[in-house]
Amino acid sequence: MSVLAVGSVAFDSIVTPSGRADNVLGGSATYFSLAASYFTEVRIVAVVGEDFSSDNDNVFKKRGIDIRGIQRAKGKTFRWGGHYLENLNEAKTDFTELNVFEQFKPRIPPEYKDSQFLFLGNIHPSLQTTVRSEMDGVRLTGGDTMNYWIQGARKELLETLKLVNVLLINDAEAKMLAGDNSLARAARKVLDMGPQALVVKHGEYGATIFFDEGTFGSGSHPFRAPALPIEEVKDPTGAGDSFAGGFMGYIAAQGELNREVLKRALFYGGVMGSFTVERFGTERLQSLTKDDIEARFQIFRELTHLE
Amino acid sequence: MSVLAVGSVAFDSIVTPSGRADNVLGGSATYFSLAASYFTEVRIVAVVGEDFSSDNDNVFKKRGIDIRGIQRAKGKTFRWGGHYLENLNEAKTDFTELNVFEQFKPRIPPEYKDSQFLFLGNIHPSLQTTVRSEMDGVRLTGGDTMNYWIQGARKELLETLKLVNVLLINDAEAKMLAGDNSLARAARKVLDMGPQALVVKHGEYGATIFFDEGTFGSGSHPFRAPALPIEEVKDPTGAGDSFAGGFMGYIAAQGELNREVLKRALFYGGVMGSFTVERFGTERLQSLTKDDIEARFQIFRELTHLE
Repeated sequence: MSVLAVGSVAFDSIVTPSGRADNVLGGSATYFSLAASYFTEVRIVAVVGEDFSSDNDNVFKKRGIDIRGIQRAKGKTFRWGGHYLENLNEAKTDFTELNVFEQFKPRIPPEYKDSQFLFLGNIHPSLQTTVRSEMDGVRLTGGDTMNYWIQGARKELLETLKLVNVLLINDAEAKMLAGDNSLARAARKVLDMGPQALVVKHGEYGATIFFDEGTFGSGSHPFRAPALPIEEVKDPTGAGDSFAGGFMGYIAAQGELNREVLKRALFYGGVMGSFTVERFGTERLQSLTKDDIEARFQIFRELTHLE
Repeated sequence: MSVLAVGSVAFDSIVTPSGRADNVLGGSATYFSLAASYFTEVRIVAVVGEDFSSDNDNVFKKRGIDIRGIQRAKGKTFRWGGHYLENLNEAKTDFTELNVFEQFKPRIPPEYKDSQFLFLGNIHPSLQTTVRSEMDGVRLTGGDTMNYWIQGARKELLETLKLVNVLLINDAEAKMLAGDNSLARAARKVLDMGPQALVVKHGEYGATIFFDEGTFGSGSHPFRAPALPIEEVKDPTGAGDSFAGGFMGYIAAQGELNREVLKRALFYGGVMGSFTVERFGTERLQSLTKDDIEARFQIFRELTHLE
């Protein structure tokens, strides 16, 4: 089944302790859709500028991603520059040039309307709500957000959250959204805002999914998936979006939606994030095989499973 | 089989967002031995002052802990005061009164000499080395240390590490000891210093054990155990020492030493740490049952195991 991703496509300039990459293809929807493409059909809604080349297009096309929803606007593509110091968990932004992304109004091509899975990337909550309202027949909506919207567009975000089935954010975002420094309490409060499940991404420590007891039954314990201890994280950019892509892609490929599917999806999210950080930009995500992914899934399993 | 714990016994005064406790029984060897006592026979070597009451003794005795190795010295028992702000991962020290602990010279009672398992708590590395050298027939030595010794007694610590089979420290300590900000690389460097296994404690994110490939075979992947997302952490003091106690206690209770035993021990470490933080001081650790522990072990398993 198809998953539709809405978000940013960008050119990134990245410096890490391992080296640098200039003007490489990036953006949340790019990482998401490449990661999801190993599991299911992917469609993307985004905006790029006149500097977006056919080589750039081909990165998506080679992975079979439907890019009819990528609008071409006058001007330049969104550009972001950032660097990481020794603490690879935190990006320092050097510059942000929104360019065509500043006026981005997602337009859903008619051919996309039958998508059963939807991922609302990190854009203004009002746009997320509009996209969701234009889609009939969606079985599951995943969503992302960030501190900027949590603080600056809280009212709109709370409306969006009523429409999101699974929210994927990090520890700091979850605590900020709930106004609570206990992750377990914050998770309960976020679930009360609408989502049936909350995925909290812990960076190098993996991720936890919290389940709404009203949906999944009382005593629905949370579930944790590990991250792989990696000797050299070359570039952490896009790890969270790749996680979301693996997570949603796996879910979309399954016939049914239940707790066990969501648990496995959490593992596949970690798997895809672990590949991304091994190279700069989307390089590693462009050249994986199903066998690579299954082999790493087994490593993740061995990482936490007792005999 | 018996495990011998060497470390501190103290009176703690603790303030957390949940409340406060004054002059309660604490210290690394206290938490360690109480946690380990649910799995195996425990012996303790420590020092206390004239203010240490028979009520304090009884906390150990009720758990069957052999306290013949607790020396009584003139003066007062080690006292520590600290508080935690919203970030419960970090204690702020209000005062440290070493008192009798300042001149602590561990003395091993003859009756303890046949201990097969040894835990060297967080004391000066030279004392750790001396204790280890006085013990014949030890099958496995666990050890702890801290930034203070890593920076201030590095040479002595490197000697100790040659005698330690399993080192248990946290992320920051592992990175400082190795001089490397990548946890996976730091782990390899620490294992090159002597230990056959390294347990890195991640606080609310659980713990990872790294295995020396020379001992456990090449391709010995690390293993991760979760921590339980807890709504209200009342007092994090002693969680790491309780972890070590559960870990070593479980190992000491098994007939054999192998990778699978160490993996399960990591889970039991997390289980004991999770109980400790539910109440102030050692309160929760004094009143557990085997059933409590097994029930929580099952929850930890469900927290990470796919069907």
